[in-house]
Amino acid sequence: MGSDHLSTRDRLVHAMARALQQRGYHGIGLAELLAEAGAPKGVLYHHFPGGKQALAVAAIEATAAHIAASLDRLIAARADPLPALQGWLALAQAQLDRSGFERGCPLATVALETTAADTAVRAALAQAFDGIRARLALLLCAAGVAEARAGGLAALVVAAYEGALMQARVAGSAAPMAEAAEALLALLRREVDRSPPAPPVAPGLAAPSRPQRGSR
Amino acid sequence: MGSDHLSTRDRLVHAMARALQQRGYHGIGLAELLAEAGAPKGVLYHHFPGGKQALAVAAIEATAAHIAASLDRLIAARADPLPALQGWLALAQAQLDRSGFERGCPLATVALETTAADTAVRAALAQAFDGIRARLALLLCAAGVAEARAGGLAALVVAAYEGALMQARVAGSAAPMAEAAEALLALLRREVDRSPPAPPVAPGLAAPSRPQRGSR
Repeated sequence: MGSDHLSTRDRLVHAMARALQQRGYHGIGLAELLAEAGAPKGVLYHHFPGGKQALAVAAIEATAAHIAASLDRLIAARADPLPALQGWLALAQAQLDRSGFERGCPLATVALETTAADTAVRAALAQAFDGIRARLALLLCAAGVAEARAGGLAALVVAAYEGALMQARVAGSAAPMAEAAEALLALLRREVDRSPPAPPVAPGLAAPSRPQRGSR
Repeated sequence: MGSDHLSTRDRLVHAMARALQQRGYHGIGLAELLAEAGAPKGVLYHHFPGGKQALAVAAIEATAAHIAASLDRLIAARADPLPALQGWLALAQAQLDRSGFERGCPLATVALETTAADTAVRAALAQAFDGIRARLALLLCAAGVAEARAGGLAALVVAAYEGALMQARVAGSAAPMAEAAEALLALLRREVDRSPPAPPVAPGLAAPSRPQRGSR
């Protein structure tokens, strides 16, 4: 994705997001980042008085908004949410594969690098993961999962996504991610099959949430 | 865990393993690490001519051996493998919680920090994850999962473990991990329930693998 049309602030955020995805927070040299964004150091501190950490928070927020928007599109566009979820996992796998196993989840590495002292970074990450889980829970409900189980399953889907990308990255092969995703989807399909069949939905609309059964 | 009785080499490996768990590879200052291990710089290069990276490989191998041994004990000691797996997840969760959300999986952060150029580190990590998946597949077979599905489910369990710890870490709360683990265990229990009931096993022995059904 080109960044010539972006403002200096946006170029900085973009360069930081990309660096977080490839090397994580501690692996980022500020000089290299400024060179990539074509921005002198003064400009960084003009836009981000908090320096590298404040820029990382802005990059995490921008990444989270991007992921949320793509999940919202998935939820809105597909009549059948489970294949949509499968497509989302396949897309992440393909991106990692195409990048020579360098570009995984842009939130994951920095998430593991933080300590409790990194309050602002952790808060931005926690909010990002909250938003992703909430959208996945909606998607699972639309697929026919009982509302009471959707939150836990959404946390499991996020976990599977992150941990599967991690295994594929070090293996230098998409196989562990493909296997984990296939196993997850098979279990989710069975979870949905336990519920009554979904009512037909108009193409282009997400399935409405259905009345929940009283017991699991 | 004290390290007074360890050799200098072991103290270095121990300090590196601990640092990888808390801050990842890039976040480690060599001076700080040497101070923690009580070792001068010359001693590091005596034991590890490849320096920081070679020490990281040794730490990853030691960590992998430790995890493999603990999984082998789980497989050998429990008559009922799924509660054993649940206990394993709960233990990781408790360790993260007790450490103020600083000590997650000792392999995870460095796994995400590596690029394809970090050949030796990635090879050690890939081997570690292979060994963990193989043991979890054995454990799942002992629980009654069909052999053909055990590999994929093992990759999913590893993924869920890693991704759930990640979510708990940034949330500063065990809740996302507890929810993901509960959802995973419920799905695995249902997977096992599809198989015929396990034959009784002698206490202290893992359940033998059972004849597999022809189809999934």
